[in-house]
Amino acid sequence: MLDIALVGCGGMMPLPNRYLSSLLLRFEGRMLLIDCGEGTQVSVKQVGWGFKNIDCICLTHFHADHVAGLPGLLLTIGGSGREEPLTIVGPQGVGHIVRSLCVIAPEIPFPINFIEIPARGATDIAIPLTSYALSASPAEHNCPCFAFRVDIKRKGKFDLEAAQLLPIPRNYWKVLQSGQDIEHEGRLYAPDMVMGQERKGLAVSYCTDSRPPRGLAAFVRGSDIFVCEGHYGEDDKLDKAKSHKHMLFSEAAQLARAGEVKQMWLTHFSPAMPNPEAFIQVARNIFPNSHVGYDRMTATLSFEED
Amino acid sequence: MLDIALVGCGGMMPLPNRYLSSLLLRFEGRMLLIDCGEGTQVSVKQVGWGFKNIDCICLTHFHADHVAGLPGLLLTIGGSGREEPLTIVGPQGVGHIVRSLCVIAPEIPFPINFIEIPARGATDIAIPLTSYALSASPAEHNCPCFAFRVDIKRKGKFDLEAAQLLPIPRNYWKVLQSGQDIEHEGRLYAPDMVMGQERKGLAVSYCTDSRPPRGLAAFVRGSDIFVCEGHYGEDDKLDKAKSHKHMLFSEAAQLARAGEVKQMWLTHFSPAMPNPEAFIQVARNIFPNSHVGYDRMTATLSFEED
Repeated sequence: MLDIALVGCGGMMPLPNRYLSSLLLRFEGRMLLIDCGEGTQVSVKQVGWGFKNIDCICLTHFHADHVAGLPGLLLTIGGSGREEPLTIVGPQGVGHIVRSLCVIAPEIPFPINFIEIPARGATDIAIPLTSYALSASPAEHNCPCFAFRVDIKRKGKFDLEAAQLLPIPRNYWKVLQSGQDIEHEGRLYAPDMVMGQERKGLAVSYCTDSRPPRGLAAFVRGSDIFVCEGHYGEDDKLDKAKSHKHMLFSEAAQLARAGEVKQMWLTHFSPAMPNPEAFIQVARNIFPNSHVGYDRMTATLSFEED
Repeated sequence: MLDIALVGCGGMMPLPNRYLSSLLLRFEGRMLLIDCGEGTQVSVKQVGWGFKNIDCICLTHFHADHVAGLPGLLLTIGGSGREEPLTIVGPQGVGHIVRSLCVIAPEIPFPINFIEIPARGATDIAIPLTSYALSASPAEHNCPCFAFRVDIKRKGKFDLEAAQLLPIPRNYWKVLQSGQDIEHEGRLYAPDMVMGQERKGLAVSYCTDSRPPRGLAAFVRGSDIFVCEGHYGEDDKLDKAKSHKHMLFSEAAQLARAGEVKQMWLTHFSPAMPNPEAFIQVARNIFPNSHVGYDRMTATLSFEED
């Protein structure tokens, strides 16, 4: 099961009743966080999944409202007893940015590995210690910025009948199931001889701080949950959205519809919009399964029945 | 009148119901902030005095729980329309630390001036745009750290009879009152010829992240409010306090008593102490006018009647 928590849903600055936009995923006990603004660690604490198993932090871009909480979170993860390496993924220069911020946190007790995303994006980055496959696609903001997609891939079913027909000992079946070839009596056996086609996995996508990016519908296609910026609710804020490089509810809904996602959660609300719920119909008119995000909105996704 | 707000009272990490330790002063509409941890700007917003007139930020030391909120706060101050320079005071290296943190906030729209405190401390630093006189005295932490004292000085009374005896035009009286010498018909007149002795002003002192520092009682002497760390309530935490370089409630109370302050506010509570009120009697047995601080605890001080 994949647990998802929208840690915060605010844009630009943290507010007394709204943490900054951030998403936490948990699968097989391992966690991946997208963005970490000022105060994110406080809401993560309230989510209640602990800090120690946060294995990866993905940064969409380097504006303060998406990264200023990093030194505090890293110290708190350290305080939780983590010693395993942690991976931080972000646009080019991510190592420099994180090291600059951590001038006030020199005593982080675990190694940090950085993965720089090339400008064109990246596909299926394996995140160490986890089963997450991370992809990144360029967003359209006033600085380098990425949308993310996290896939949990699912192998095909084990074909017992096919396995029984192979002249190999039964204890080799597991090896093939794990994806490795085996050699037996001079002959090579490959996993696809006993495994069915890859089954539908789980996918969560996340896009904030962007105009509607080219290619995003294809990038998020079929996501179980698409978390998308809806910085402004009203359509008459289009000029403002264009000049600040943000999205309207209606633009997010168009992306959700074009990407044929299962549901969309809106996030990254303007501080000038205290009640985003008031505009939900704008999104639902275009994409009915739209939801206004709120701090610590959660969901659990399971693989489909076979 | 001097307004004082304890913006937060937590130590080490921000908690869902406790912001990090920070103090905000307001006099004649101009503000001075001591320390700025992650989330401080959110509590400052709740204090309700605005952001634009924050003229000075004093940093006790460079641990994340005292400075990580700086980039966000500076951006929010910028968003409030400030264009006047802002002064940041801190231990040596303050400019480097703030510039490193602000790698994620390159667009701050006002100049920042830095004042580095020498290791031995400093007395009566005039803070531009304000009437604050700031002093700093070394604390005893595991890195360079200072206690602060903020004085609002008060001139003596104007001596009308003495002024009338001087052979100078009446419109020169104001010049003398403002502290400037004047020359009239070849003779020099000084302010002390018409002004009485300096009267008692107002003083607020602040000391966190320290063992009880040598000389601190003299440094805070007579303060109207002494805000002091009480990291642990129980006396049996002395060994822990010594090893982490923090103070007990009882040690803070001894400093308050020795310094003959008017009242003491305890702050910077350990995250492991959810209910510091439970230990208030430990402090009051030593210094009766002790108070357990809480987020946005406020007070207003006025000059004494003449």
